[in-house]
Amino acid sequence: MSANIYEERCRQAQAVMASLQIDFLFLGPGADMRYLIGTPGMENERMMLFIVPQTGQPVMIVPTLEKLATGKHATYFDLLDWSDGVGPQGSLLEALGDSVNREVKAAVGAHLWSMFLLELQRILPNSSWTTATEILKKLRISKSAAEVKLLKEAAAIADRTFDDIRQLKFAGRRELEIMGDINNLLLKHGQERMEFCIVGSGPNGAQPHHHTGDRIIQPGDAIVLDFGGMYQGYFSDMTRMVLVEGADADPLYREVYDVVNKARAAGHAQAKPGVTCESVDAAARKVIVDAGYGEFFVHRTGHGIGMEVHEEPYIVNGNQLILEPGMAFSIEPGIYLPGRFGVRIEDIAIVTDNGEENINLSTHEIVTVR
Amino acid sequence: MSANIYEERCRQAQAVMASLQIDFLFLGPGADMRYLIGTPGMENERMMLFIVPQTGQPVMIVPTLEKLATGKHATYFDLLDWSDGVGPQGSLLEALGDSVNREVKAAVGAHLWSMFLLELQRILPNSSWTTATEILKKLRISKSAAEVKLLKEAAAIADRTFDDIRQLKFAGRRELEIMGDINNLLLKHGQERMEFCIVGSGPNGAQPHHHTGDRIIQPGDAIVLDFGGMYQGYFSDMTRMVLVEGADADPLYREVYDVVNKARAAGHAQAKPGVTCESVDAAARKVIVDAGYGEFFVHRTGHGIGMEVHEEPYIVNGNQLILEPGMAFSIEPGIYLPGRFGVRIEDIAIVTDNGEENINLSTHEIVTVR
Repeated sequence: MSANIYEERCRQAQAVMASLQIDFLFLGPGADMRYLIGTPGMENERMMLFIVPQTGQPVMIVPTLEKLATGKHATYFDLLDWSDGVGPQGSLLEALGDSVNREVKAAVGAHLWSMFLLELQRILPNSSWTTATEILKKLRISKSAAEVKLLKEAAAIADRTFDDIRQLKFAGRRELEIMGDINNLLLKHGQERMEFCIVGSGPNGAQPHHHTGDRIIQPGDAIVLDFGGMYQGYFSDMTRMVLVEGADADPLYREVYDVVNKARAAGHAQAKPGVTCESVDAAARKVIVDAGYGEFFVHRTGHGIGMEVHEEPYIVNGNQLILEPGMAFSIEPGIYLPGRFGVRIEDIAIVTDNGEENINLSTHEIVTVR
Repeated sequence: MSANIYEERCRQAQAVMASLQIDFLFLGPGADMRYLIGTPGMENERMMLFIVPQTGQPVMIVPTLEKLATGKHATYFDLLDWSDGVGPQGSLLEALGDSVNREVKAAVGAHLWSMFLLELQRILPNSSWTTATEILKKLRISKSAAEVKLLKEAAAIADRTFDDIRQLKFAGRRELEIMGDINNLLLKHGQERMEFCIVGSGPNGAQPHHHTGDRIIQPGDAIVLDFGGMYQGYFSDMTRMVLVEGADADPLYREVYDVVNKARAAGHAQAKPGVTCESVDAAARKVIVDAGYGEFFVHRTGHGIGMEVHEEPYIVNGNQLILEPGMAFSIEPGIYLPGRFGVRIEDIAIVTDNGEENINLSTHEIVTVR
């Protein structure tokens, strides 16, 4: 990305701020910051805050020890640094100037830590506050061609990783060992880092967000493998099932797998420009409800993905947002049978001019492993 | 930890709340939640909130898909779950009852995302807000014997990892490859996961929080290695320097290393019950200032450590908190020469009844590597 793409994005954000009559945008470290300046910054208890006024020059409040690293990205904004033992208040007051006495409308990054929002609310006591999501969503929700390319490369790394996962030995090993292998495979295939990994074996798979642990994998286990990593700031997120050979699977496994796989396909078939997000959820959910497993599909069908693993648009009942080309999101129906097993299958869909592209190419057939 | 240690901790938190006249404590996923219920929860855009009233039974607002995993920890509090497509507001109103119409004093977790604090502020419009740090600090700042044992084991893993790091080949390899090796070594020696890793080679070491990248390591480079991981919920954090053989080091390296190492020792010598946090910072800083490098020591001397990598107490100018037995923190002075190199050495100190124990045992001598 060239340096001035960030300045251009910031000007777009300021235009949205004007339309919403937002006076100041306050962003902490994270994806929004990376989108606007090219680095996510450093998230910890030291205040690092990117302040965008509705017009004019943005300013970054930065701890002195991050000044050198941040300065490389400061192509179009000013840096105000503060030192340990002095604190950020002076820099913050300098950045806000006369606004501290006015009634301002302020937007804060959705993930900004409360300790920083409470500090801002103390300094701007007459202000009203909202999240920055409405502003950033307008910019980030539809991906550019360059962003789609990065999401596809991230997805291709996940696919290559799954090719190698199929060759692993599973029976007799702990879930955490499999997670370690997946970590190494993601790095080997080009991911900068693993972001998350769920290895939900046997009954653990019935917890959609199982914390990968010490359970020893058994022959006959169905295993949920949900993993992703970062590639040049963009994330992969894919879920595949593997079935460990050497013992009979749960007698319901093949039927449940087939239902989830058909729900997955129905979600992709519905995803296209002009339909609502909730209609994609409904299409996938209908397959599962019709098969009699509705009560065991305990989450939405998907979430947007880009510079965050979870971002807009959410594929969920009640979301009447209309899909547009460039929107990228997961389609990941699941059925979870407490005490027995879970099944989830997940790919990333990107809306095109006349439909969608499924950017994860790993098989949807039942996969067996050793 | 037995189940009722969590209930006991919660009762202690409620006693502190009473002394501070705080009506409600709101904690999101993270270390505070783990300290009080035994799991950190799952941090994402779905509201997961542990609500502790000043008296009576706490309640957890939990997304339905996390209910099964969270339920295992719900030994002394109620669960109110909410579904995707419905949202958490109903559960939140049920949990708060009549309080929504009262003026309540509320404390929120320092790291709770702003999107959730703004939602709470909408629902409790007549309330005053502060961070929960004053409450949790009282509980978490001095470690129990059981916690000290876990911190020591985490530190021992870091030491064993450094033994192996010394055997690695550095010259000609990218910083990111070394980071991958350190990741694997931390897991091999028993860490559940690597939490962070800085490989700051040559001039990159002059950025205290350098983002480990693609730079190819050269003979003669001084390299800052700052890494840590989690062991049963407690963190390690250690920094050591290595010097790559095969070419002359920067002519200032040995002198600067010696100054930092003496500053480190001076910090440890000052750490004992009854002295202030800032006096430990001052003791380490004096060595560096006296040697003429004061302007290049651009950060505080240390931070507390436990269930978070950075927590109370902070070893920083202005912090007049008195050290007590059980307090655990880093001592990590550094000198950063822009464009040339950086030196930092870091161990974890735990205050004892009559002094401190340095729980990292790796050498403080200059280490050379291939």
